[in-house]
Order: sequence, then structure tokens, then C-alpha cells
Amino acid sequence: MSEFEAKDHPHRRYNPLTGDWVLVSPHRAKRPWQGQIEKAETEQNPSYDPSCFLCPTNTRISGDLNPDYQQPFVFTNDFAALMNNTPFAHQADDELFQLKSERGTSRVICYSPDHSKTMPELSTSQIEAIVRTWIGQYQELSQQYSWVQVFENKGAINGCSNPHPHGQIWASSTVPTLPAKADAAQKDYFERHGRSLLLHYAKTELQSAERTVVANDDWLVVVPFWASWPFETLLLPLFPVARMEQLTQAQQASLADILKQLTIRYDNLFQCAFPYSMGWHCAPYNPGQAETDHSHWQLHGHFYPPLLRSATIKKFMVGYEMLAETQRDMTPEQAAERLRELSPVHYKQQAQ
Amino acid sequence: MSEFEAKDHPHRRYNPLTGDWVLVSPHRAKRPWQGQIEKAETEQNPSYDPSCFLCPTNTRISGDLNPDYQQPFVFTNDFAALMNNTPFAHQADDELFQLKSERGTSRVICYSPDHSKTMPELSTSQIEAIVRTWIGQYQELSQQYSWVQVFENKGAINGCSNPHPHGQIWASSTVPTLPAKADAAQKDYFERHGRSLLLHYAKTELQSAERTVVANDDWLVVVPFWASWPFETLLLPLFPVARMEQLTQAQQASLADILKQLTIRYDNLFQCAFPYSMGWHCAPYNPGQAETDHSHWQLHGHFYPPLLRSATIKKFMVGYEMLAETQRDMTPEQAAERLRELSPVHYKQQAQ
Ligand SMILES: O=P(O)(O)O[C@H]1O[C@H](CO)[C@@H](O)[C@H](O)[C@H]1O
Ligand SMILES: O=P(O)(O)O[C@H]1O[C@H](CO)[C@@H](O)[C@H](O)[C@H]1O
Repeated sequence: MSEFEAKDHPHRRYNPLTGDWVLVSPHRAKRPWQGQIEKAETEQNPSYDPSCFLCPTNTRISGDLNPDYQQPFVFTNDFAALMNNTPFAHQADDELFQLKSERGTSRVICYSPDHSKTMPELSTSQIEAIVRTWIGQYQELSQQYSWVQVFENKGAINGCSNPHPHGQIWASSTVPTLPAKADAAQKDYFERHGRSLLLHYAKTELQSAERTVVANDDWLVVVPFWASWPFETLLLPLFPVARMEQLTQAQQASLADILKQLTIRYDNLFQCAFPYSMGWHCAPYNPGQAETDHSHWQLHGHFYPPLLRSATIKKFMVGYEMLAETQRDMTPEQAAERLRELSPVHYKQQAQ
Repeated sequence: MSEFEAKDHPHRRYNPLTGDWVLVSPHRAKRPWQGQIEKAETEQNPSYDPSCFLCPTNTRISGDLNPDYQQPFVFTNDFAALMNNTPFAHQADDELFQLKSERGTSRVICYSPDHSKTMPELSTSQIEAIVRTWIGQYQELSQQYSWVQVFENKGAINGCSNPHPHGQIWASSTVPTLPAKADAAQKDYFERHGRSLLLHYAKTELQSAERTVVANDDWLVVVPFWASWPFETLLLPLFPVARMEQLTQAQQASLADILKQLTIRYDNLFQCAFPYSMGWHCAPYNPGQAETDHSHWQLHGHFYPPLLRSATIKKFMVGYEMLAETQRDMTPEQAAERLRELSPVHYKQQAQ
């Protein structure tokens, strides 16, 4: 019998932020695909679309008028999943029927007035304006809510219902399930080792470089050792920082730079507006109470892209994944190598 | 301020099998949908398709010939995610880089020779033959593996690459992430209460009937109190049983009956071959060692359907769901009521 080789043999890897394992079946990438074919995101949108609910000066579905904004524009979601005045619910006695009412708010951030340009096509200073907008939202919403989830669903394949480049913010009184796990995992690691899980991880990855996609002086992007999605990445600061509003101006600028570098490579992978869900995990807040210690927490960004083999073939997280365990075909090292080797110039610029 | 009403106000519910919470935003069902439209599964397939890899007497992609089978037909997946001879992997020292090699096997079960008939259109005795096939597979694979995951991905929207009605079995040496959580949760509940979590839950649900979809003397189908997917259901025995091979012949027959009743209602909901991932959770095995006590474990089946509003509009589990917490629009009670009120006769039969 041969020696074990991660790139050839089925194995499981452990995600220290969630406590879940992932099944890696690298040999399976060879199977032919006869399933559903998606629509590729290759259309060129106009800079302004008169029928778009998010373009400047247009009327939204609620009847509200968008201003003629030039900078990122934030408004409360017209169909918010959370409300700031939910009445209090009484708990049932049976522990199998636990229900708690929840307060919060949902907002939309239009990234720029230009309907046609997603993040990789914005200038670094336009991306910096988005970073500053996120920071302003954290500062404001943390006065009232324990958790502020900044995220973006990009691409129709990913449940995004409007191609105008935009993200969302859902804030809530309670820390949701996944950040609560990330908090507990980081705290536990910090208590056992006296150092930050994700800072130690970033430094180890930077040295090995095996899973590195891009890096600059302040930030590192890797396909994490435990990635679920084929081209999933983790964006990590190379210095200790718990929250986005703690970034210096220079670190905000270098964050904009790494975001542009990463999203350009994503677009170049399959020559399309590469779909993903992305979002930030910053230390939870404790509004109205004394600040708790969060030295265990390291700010980080997750990118979860659905595509597997091309602009039209996605990874389905279905049967086995829903019932037993997440499964991936290629190894994280293979995915990182492919992303790393792509041109740093956006394919639309190359063509010119 | 008004009183809390679960059908109007955002709230969270607790899933006692996973330990995760689900955000319920019932008022959000009113938002208009402008996102991706899927292809409805309304085509009538032929009973035999000469180009299908799963039809009797056809040649598979591997070159193997399918027999002229009349009963459910099982074979080893030509692109298996698990292999029975993976070499042993040595562990890394750093707990952030945990990797274990895994052994197992993947099989395919063709439900019947008929290319055109999914479960709701099979006769009860044909479904009984599938139940007996599952039992045979559990008996055989439990000799070698700790976990035997029986499941079905139905519908192209759900990553199923061949419309010939079929399910899969992935067996592994290790108990995967989700069943390991279900095991721990049931054990913990059993130790604290001296009774089975899911048997107590089934009896409580049977009495309230609020979330009941269908039931017979032996089985109950509910939209669980903590459902993630819009029309998710949980199939529960009304008697204590840990594994499928422990069912009496009468209980196997009543299981076939309830599977037919449930899947007919699913098809009737949007008048299509209703897509879902389904699968079974039975007590884990301990091959080659003394049987461990599994009195805490109750056999159960999960159905996870992706559709939200129609045959062409699905629920996207994206941004917030991937980064923070699963979110659903309508309440489980509303979903159960809609499923319960559907005709028990398949829509294709009604039209005749
Ligand atoms: O094995 P299949 O049917 O080719 O593949 C399908 O089911 C698997 C198990 O749920 C998933 O991992 C795949 O993403 C999905 O496309
Ligand atoms: O709020 P949107 O963009 O209408 O909706 C999208 O994002 C939400 C948050 O990730 C998801 O719950 C929805 O399923 C998805 O379609």
C-alpha cells in the first residue's frame, strides 16, 4: 500500500472555528459533470439602470427616493428580517420548544453610484470609502446591538436579487449561532495557549505559503486548511486587532488594497463577475454594559464562493453535506495554487 | 406595544439535535422576489431512456453494464467520495492543522427500473422494496463501518445529475460531524430526563397537531419546531427504535405508506417533482467491538427541500445564513398547515 498523500487520498480536516470536520475527496474532481448548468455572470451592465431600485435618483420598491449619492449609500432594508420593536416572548417550559424574540435591524449599503462596477473594478480609494462606511456602521449600531453582521451576497446564483453592487448589514440583540461558536473557539484557544488562534494561524500560513492567495504588509488571504467551499478564502490581519473600527488609516488603505487584489483574482479565475457571499467577524459588543475583555478575538473576513469548475458549474452542498458532513473535491492547497497563479490585472483590463 | 405573536414577529428557535438557533422572520414572506428563477421539474420523463446511465441494460460511464433489474439495484459509485483502502495519515503537531485519513465506500441505489417514476409515483410495495434494500445495506455495511449514510438528492436544482430515481449510501469508518452531534444531543437528553428526546418530541407533537403533516399508526411527519428549510420535515417513529433493521415487517410496510403520503403532498404543493435532499439517521455502529448502549438513539428521517414559494423560487442559504445564522421566512406552523391541507392524491392522478 502506498503512503498517504493529501492530494490523492480521502481525508477529513478540522475547522477550529466551528468544531466541524470537512471530508476532502481530491480524486473525485475527475468525475464528469452531468448536472445543472448555471447562467454565467458575464453580461456587461450599464453604469446607470433606470429600472434599478438601488441606482441614484431612482424610486425604491417602498416608494422612497434614492438621493443622488456619490459615496457609499446606506438605508434601512425595505423588507428587513429584523425589527427594532419586537415584543418580548415568554419561554415555553419544555426545552424542546425553545423560542426567544429578537430585536435588530437590516440595512443595505450601495457600494458606489455605478451600477456596472463590482468591487474588483472599483478604485482602491472607492473600496476605502466602503471600509470607512462599514466602520461608521459598526460605531453606530454597536451602541444598540451585540452583533453587527456586515456581508455581501454577490451574483444571482447566490441569491442576490439586484446586480447593483451592494452589501448588507443585519444587526441583532443576541450574538447569532456561528459568531457565538467563533467566540467560544477563540476564547478556549486563548486560554489554553495564551495567544490568538487566528494570529498564530496567519503567521504559520505566511511562513508555509502553501495556502496563500495574496498578501501585503498588513493582510493575508489564504484558502484555509479546513475550507468547505472549493475556492473559499479567509482574510486575516497580520497584527492583533479585534474590530474594524480599531484599524488605523493606513491599515484601512491596505485592507482596500487586499480586497481589490483578492476580488480581481476571483474574477480572473473563470473570467466572470465571480459570485460569493462574504462577510466580517469582529468581536461582539456589550451595549449599555461595561466592555468585556476580547483579547482572544481577531478580526477576520470570510469569502464563500459557490463555483466549483467553471463560471457555470457550482458545488452543491446537498445530501451528504446536509445530513452527515461537508465534502469538498479538490484540496485547499490546489485551490490556493490556482488562485495565486492568476494575473493581478483584471481580465477586462487585459483585454483592452 | 402589541403582544408577541410567532406568526408576526422575528424570533429565534433552538434546534436540540444540533444546538444551533434559527432566525424566523415571518413578516418577510411578503417581500417581492426579483432574484434568480429556477427551472421547474415538470417534464414527463420516458419510462426508459437509452442514454441514461442508470436504466436497466444500459452501459454506465465506467463501462460496466447494468443488469436487467426489476427490483432496487445497488452498485458502487463510479466516482466514489470514499475508498476502502486509504493509507493511514500521520497527525500534525499543531492543533490548527488537524487531518485524519478516512476509509469508506459510496454506493448508488436505483429505486426501480422505471426512469420516469420518483417515490410518490411508485406503489407502496415498490417503496417497501426500497426500505428492504436500505435494511440490507445497513446489515452489510455495519460489519465494516461505524456510519452508514443513506440519502437521496432529488432534482437538478439540488445537485442531482441524473433524473433516474435513485438514492445513495456513503459509509465511513468515523461518525461524521452532524450525526456525532445528534448522538451527543440525544445522549445528553436521555441522561438528564431518562427518556428519548425524539420519542418525547414525537408524542408531544402528535398531541398538539400544530406542526403535523401526515401520520399513521406507527409514524409521524412534522415540520419541526426548529426547521431551517421552508418545507423541511422530520419523519419520526411513534415507538422506540434505534435502527432501521429493527423494524418489524408491519413497521416497514407502514414506513412505505408514510413515505408515499409525504412525497405525494410534496409533489402537490407546487405541482412538480418536488426536489429535496432526504436521509436517515440511525444509531452508529461499532464494528468488530462489543455493541455499545444506544437506548438514547431514536431512528429518524430528515427531508430538506430547497423550494420557497413556487416550483421555480428557492430559498438561498447564503450571506447571513453562512456567516451568522440560518434564517427562514414563514413559520414552521404555517408550512405544516399548507402541506397538511394538500390532497392525498398525486396531482398527476387527479388530472386523469
Ligand atoms: O454524488 P453526486 O450525485 O454526483 O453529487 C451530488 O451529491 C453529493 C453528495 O450529497 C454532493 O457532494 C455533490 O455536490 C452533489 O452534486
Ligand atoms: O436580503 P435579500 O438579498 O433579498 O436575500 C438574500 O440574502 C438573505 C441574507 O443572506 C437570505 O436570507 C435570502 O435567502 C437571500 O435571497
